Amino acid sequence: MESVTQKDAVRIWASDLQTWMSSVFQKIGVPPADAEIVTHVLVDADLTGRSTHGVSRLPLYVDRLESKLICATPRLRFESTGQPSMLRLDGGNGLGPLVAWRANEKAIELARDYGSSIIAVHHSNHCGAMSAYCSEAARQGMIVIALTNSPPGIPPWGGREAFFGTNPIAFGFPRGGDSPPLVIDMATSVVARGNIIQALRLGRPIPLGWAIDKHGNPTTDAQAALEGALLPMAGAKGYALALAVEVLTGILSGAGIGPEVKNPYTDHSGPSNVGHFFMVFNPGNLLPLSEFGARMNFMEAAIRDVPPAEGAHVAVPGDRSEALRVQYLSEGVPIDKALLTQLNELGLRYGVPGLR
Amino acid sequence: MESVTQKDAVRIWASDLQTWMSSVFQKIGVPPADAEIVTHVLVDADLTGRSTHGVSRLPLYVDRLESKLICATPRLRFESTGQPSMLRLDGGNGLGPLVAWRANEKAIELARDYGSSIIAVHHSNHCGAMSAYCSEAARQGMIVIALTNSPPGIPPWGGREAFFGTNPIAFGFPRGGDSPPLVIDMATSVVARGNIIQALRLGRPIPLGWAIDKHGNPTTDAQAALEGALLPMAGAKGYALALAVEVLTGILSGAGIGPEVKNPYTDHSGPSNVGHFFMVFNPGNLLPLSEFGARMNFMEAAIRDVPPAEGAHVAVPGDRSEALRVQYLSEGVPIDKALLTQLNELGLRYGVPGLR
Repeated sequence: MESVTQKDAVRIWASDLQTWMSSVFQKIGVPPADAEIVTHVLVDADLTGRSTHGVSRLPLYVDRLESKLICATPRLRFESTGQPSMLRLDGGNGLGPLVAWRANEKAIELARDYGSSIIAVHHSNHCGAMSAYCSEAARQGMIVIALTNSPPGIPPWGGREAFFGTNPIAFGFPRGGDSPPLVIDMATSVVARGNIIQALRLGRPIPLGWAIDKHGNPTTDAQAALEGALLPMAGAKGYALALAVEVLTGILSGAGIGPEVKNPYTDHSGPSNVGHFFMVFNPGNLLPLSEFGARMNFMEAAIRDVPPAEGAHVAVPGDRSEALRVQYLSEGVPIDKALLTQLNELGLRYGVPGLR
Repeated sequence: MESVTQKDAVRIWASDLQTWMSSVFQKIGVPPADAEIVTHVLVDADLTGRSTHGVSRLPLYVDRLESKLICATPRLRFESTGQPSMLRLDGGNGLGPLVAWRANEKAIELARDYGSSIIAVHHSNHCGAMSAYCSEAARQGMIVIALTNSPPGIPPWGGREAFFGTNPIAFGFPRGGDSPPLVIDMATSVVARGNIIQALRLGRPIPLGWAIDKHGNPTTDAQAALEGALLPMAGAKGYALALAVEVLTGILSGAGIGPEVKNPYTDHSGPSNVGHFFMVFNPGNLLPLSEFGARMNFMEAAIRDVPPAEGAHVAVPGDRSEALRVQYLSEGVPIDKALLTQLNELGLRYGVPGLR
């Protein structure tokens, strides 16, 4: 999830991006409160350098809404289970970021009451970067594990056709004091599919080792990679993690499993039926929150004290994202020119004035 | 966690290994029931090809018991929290496999009552392969995420000194019908430290890419690797996962954090203070168990239907381990000759007749 390079980019204020994108969603029939949530999730990705999961996905979301493959006014239904701290959520084929946000919100509420909670979501859609949900839960003092499945991206170990999605694994941990949460969000493929889509849009080659073509051969061609498969991170280990994510998101919830999850870019035969999984718990039940924060700070300080390798500096996960958030809030979010043109054309169609 | 090659190996019946090893533990003062549990966990590793985490660890465990750095008769104390489904366990510095087994057992029991459970363990020790606990929970119909921290093995990203352990992540999932559980168990380093220890014992070099020496340079020398650091799997992603495991195992439980966890081989200044984390839940609360099993079987069959890459075959995680279990139960567990000599010398010291 690399950010765009600055030279091809125009700077847009995050608040302008929020207002503009929310207006577009509302023009298509998304209720204002829902549009604000979806837009917040996408802008949060842009603000933290995950530009592959930000406003660049708007054309896709609009396309699916227009063709009624995503429902603008979904009926979200929490389905009770044998236990009050565990729920299924039928997302009613709503916009993924709306459905995932509601699930995360409910999981936080249940964890406050019962210590921990699990919500398995079905009939959702692409929900942007999981980091937005993890940040939110951790800001509310919770630890969260957030997972989603996605359309086929990586082959099973030994296979040559994509089966699992890039099935990300994400964590949110509160830090001590007023520090922003520590958020970890990674695809179980070497890179997220968004990087390939972005390379294609920018007309750039991709590095060897990211993907194979449809014949199973290594490729640097973004189009060939999208027709082929992404490679799992760490070989067989990444494949095993992607499988674990699929069980927790797809199998448990009743969502699509593997190739049953429809690719929103290429498959217009019906809803994607994406599944998510949110596991939230309150660390304050295991030790006093002040002690938890102090131990987090102790670990972080000790990590930063490790001597660096030659020419390197020691990083803590999320360092770069949080630095970008500060930078982009003060300088504007970089949007590459090709995307800006595409967005402004889209805005024009809905009578929403351009971004510049 | 590679198995030993067959040519240097003698075959020992798993039942003989169990009886012999349990006797040794009992001679050192471990109560019979506890000795049986610890031995079961180690033999399970040998049976599933994880020979680096099996009987090869006995000399270490015996050494720590003899020097009173592990307590043979620990007082395990479950510490209640604000919520009945969440507990801390003070392992009383007992043998890791005993402490972890009791935590897992309790987590299963709580998940039966409350749907899901979390147990954070402190003052434990090296607990063998997490796969044994995952198999057990899944055999009882539960989904489990099992984690442990371990003494410094991998550097933070950009650093040149080890900080986090090889901090494994393990999952257990029930399959449909009478099939054995689907178990995933991976170090967040490229390989588990046990592989380096085994290479050293066998006088073999290690592949490039597994480790760096103490100056931060790549090495093929097992001794230099043990003095240096292991590389995280998938680069910065593996480091981030190791950090997440450390929060859940070390920070939450009150166990050691990073370098506070003492290396049992080299640090005799006190107990290791290892931390574990068990999160168990009943999938039957989210969907009928028969439906869960059917969906697991559907996914597995669909994976095996994916066309193989040239010269490969499509694998499901755990395939090899379960095949080895069947093979080793019928042919005996391969124990390399150097280890067998070491074990028989150890048995002699305690008046336990040799393994052959």
